[in-house]
Amino acid sequence: MADQALVKTFEDMLGKENVFSSEADRQTYSYDSAVLTPVVPALVVRPTSVERLGQCVQKLYDNGIPMTVRGAGTNLSGGTIPDNSDTVVVLTTALTRILEINVNDLYAVVEPGVITATLAAEVARKNLFYPPDPGSQSVSTIAGNIAENAGGLRGLKYGCTKDYVMGIEFFDATGALVKSGSRTVKCVTGYNLAGLMVQSEGTLGIISQAVLKLVPPPKASKALMAVFANVQDAAEAVAGIIAAHVVPCTLEFLDNNTIVRVDDFTKAGLPRDAGAILLIEVDGHPAQVAEEAEVVEKVIKANNATDVKVPKDAAEKLKLWEARRMALPVLARCRPTTVLEDATVPRSQIPAMMKAVNDIAAKYRLEVGTFGHAGDGNLHPTFLCDKRDADEFHRVEEAIDEMFDTALKLQGTLSGEHGIGTAKAKWMEKETSRGTILFSQRLRRALDPRGLLNPTKLVGI
Amino acid sequence: MADQALVKTFEDMLGKENVFSSEADRQTYSYDSAVLTPVVPALVVRPTSVERLGQCVQKLYDNGIPMTVRGAGTNLSGGTIPDNSDTVVVLTTALTRILEINVNDLYAVVEPGVITATLAAEVARKNLFYPPDPGSQSVSTIAGNIAENAGGLRGLKYGCTKDYVMGIEFFDATGALVKSGSRTVKCVTGYNLAGLMVQSEGTLGIISQAVLKLVPPPKASKALMAVFANVQDAAEAVAGIIAAHVVPCTLEFLDNNTIVRVDDFTKAGLPRDAGAILLIEVDGHPAQVAEEAEVVEKVIKANNATDVKVPKDAAEKLKLWEARRMALPVLARCRPTTVLEDATVPRSQIPAMMKAVNDIAAKYRLEVGTFGHAGDGNLHPTFLCDKRDADEFHRVEEAIDEMFDTALKLQGTLSGEHGIGTAKAKWMEKETSRGTILFSQRLRRALDPRGLLNPTKLVGI
Repeated sequence: MADQALVKTFEDMLGKENVFSSEADRQTYSYDSAVLTPVVPALVVRPTSVERLGQCVQKLYDNGIPMTVRGAGTNLSGGTIPDNSDTVVVLTTALTRILEINVNDLYAVVEPGVITATLAAEVARKNLFYPPDPGSQSVSTIAGNIAENAGGLRGLKYGCTKDYVMGIEFFDATGALVKSGSRTVKCVTGYNLAGLMVQSEGTLGIISQAVLKLVPPPKASKALMAVFANVQDAAEAVAGIIAAHVVPCTLEFLDNNTIVRVDDFTKAGLPRDAGAILLIEVDGHPAQVAEEAEVVEKVIKANNATDVKVPKDAAEKLKLWEARRMALPVLARCRPTTVLEDATVPRSQIPAMMKAVNDIAAKYRLEVGTFGHAGDGNLHPTFLCDKRDADEFHRVEEAIDEMFDTALKLQGTLSGEHGIGTAKAKWMEKETSRGTILFSQRLRRALDPRGLLNPTKLVGI
Repeated sequence: MADQALVKTFEDMLGKENVFSSEADRQTYSYDSAVLTPVVPALVVRPTSVERLGQCVQKLYDNGIPMTVRGAGTNLSGGTIPDNSDTVVVLTTALTRILEINVNDLYAVVEPGVITATLAAEVARKNLFYPPDPGSQSVSTIAGNIAENAGGLRGLKYGCTKDYVMGIEFFDATGALVKSGSRTVKCVTGYNLAGLMVQSEGTLGIISQAVLKLVPPPKASKALMAVFANVQDAAEAVAGIIAAHVVPCTLEFLDNNTIVRVDDFTKAGLPRDAGAILLIEVDGHPAQVAEEAEVVEKVIKANNATDVKVPKDAAEKLKLWEARRMALPVLARCRPTTVLEDATVPRSQIPAMMKAVNDIAAKYRLEVGTFGHAGDGNLHPTFLCDKRDADEFHRVEEAIDEMFDTALKLQGTLSGEHGIGTAKAKWMEKETSRGTILFSQRLRRALDPRGLLNPTKLVGI
């Protein structure tokens, strides 16, 4: 609980309606989407203009108060959980203006709290395309996407949020405005601070504006669902599609456990006895789409697909894609605790990784459902458990340790798109080096000398 | 001139044949491709393995000796000119191994001194594509390209070097090894240090290895040359092509002065009385190429193109493209001094920018030849002058000041792809903010506390 003088200061600055100090309000912002212990902040503030956002940062800096900036709180690694009970949560949810959509120069300028799906829809209305589509897109915000380098279903062909950030303005720890990047396609003026802010998890500055790249939309697309008797065939098919030089815009994977759980809930008519399914979509010029779809069908048949289903219309396709988007929420309903992981491997290692995930789950007697962005090697093995069962949860932790070891052995990474936060910090040195940790800490201490910006996240300060 | 003990240390470490201490040798490394005063270094060393590269950095750090890392020295903003007479130049030119080209996972792993065109050719041999093609590609090195975020003719459709860096390993100022990024398409493990190293101009670390993204090559392409009576029509055509949602892989511009100068030298048969020409290439699926070429022809005719020439074969196309690549070397022969600029504007502002460049040249009574990557708003107005003529060179400096002011007014940037180095540092604050300069300096001081890594470049330390 913040002291009354501070509450009053913020009320004067932002208006009473934008300062939340009650127990109930503060509880609301004590957790995010990661399975971690909640921490109740001292205060929650909601600046209603970018200028006021800067004033808030400066005020908190002057008073030596830690701050956690928060959009929609869909973070999966704890990046938006307050650091301690002195923390002030700074909401960007009132900064939702799309300042410009430039159809001639193919960019958009937005405030930090714009919801990803809202931007995508506004852009589509102007016959342009903002590709990043994280699973959380209907609620998550652009600045949150940038701070986490959010991926999504289209990452394989179109890249992640990082690939669409042309420029960023942000307030540093002291509240000073920093600008990096431009409205131009090329810009090398100074350090690539816009690039550095991507995936920095609120530890280096508070994003106040972003210039985002837009592209012309694809003219055509074709979707299909491929059904396999077992996981290995599906995994081999994924590697085969890329090796055939087809880069689908979507190449998603669901294992049997996920299929059954989703079908129970959605009644989408999924093939419940399949070992795995792939949802595949190719897009681009109509002629290219036709050819690529043919190549894809050939590869999946060569890899023993038992069925190939082409949705007969947009509604049917949407139903299948919704089934994929429901994977996490549905699995999350099955048991009290859902531990969603995001280890990622080079695409050709997916068969090996899938085998390892299932072997590890069996070894530790755990229920796992795996789904994810198979096309970019980014799987989400999801352990269903109960955190209150100490023995079971300990086995989950051991399983995750072993899974990360496997991912690294396969030249993969701890996290494809969910971030480090507080959840994965302990594994970072294993993937990188002692030098990397020290370098990151020096960088961080220089840019946040009082240790106020999300201080317990990503790497120690 | 370095003291003999230091020379001996490096000779013992690297072998005599890799340590250059003679006056003549040191003169060779006193300049790069920027119009700036040469600085003769104390010593030049050439490590022959990545391990020895790390040992060199550590030795120089321990002795408090400034170091400038250098690939081919094609830098256009002074980034590879030694900082002072104590500087040791560290060459990467012996670190030329391509460690891996992975055709299944679409990446290459390379040492820092690999020549860009060599990598591109090796990749093409495996039926893959490494798109970045800076003008210097036949001699410049991958680590140099990364340190400058080199662009090139294909930047419009395919992006710059930045867009192909998946992972980097580098030695920090102390010689400790830092790793960032991965062989996976997605990776958010820790800060985006690989992104930070891009365009950092040798001031934050010494790159020892890079993982680079590869893509399937386009199946077809079509090139054409469009001739215009005046610059404004050509500039409007560029904006029109993008507005029609065609993104050519090449969209290059040459003004009359450049055309005449190049034709004099190459006898390429260019239209000598044209106000400007555009060299345009679309690529992708054959059907898409055919359609896009049709749209391009329609747009250029609507913008008063006086002639459209389609090269009848690959040889004829190569001749035209070579004429474009010869623009800078040919202009550089005309007068003793060539000042090549690289202010960049949003694409739709090219007509305004071209008008301003020519107005400014007339105002200051200067000869300018302008060519460049019109498609991404990245023009290279090139002032032909004689630095020994103090009055003329002063007018060049005034013209450049005014040109940068114009670019910023048009929401552009100081530098699209040539970097800041020592040449443009004085304008940086105007484009960004005081906060940006201070933030950059804090970052830099933390990562290079003894101020040894290219200390006078990019931003003050």
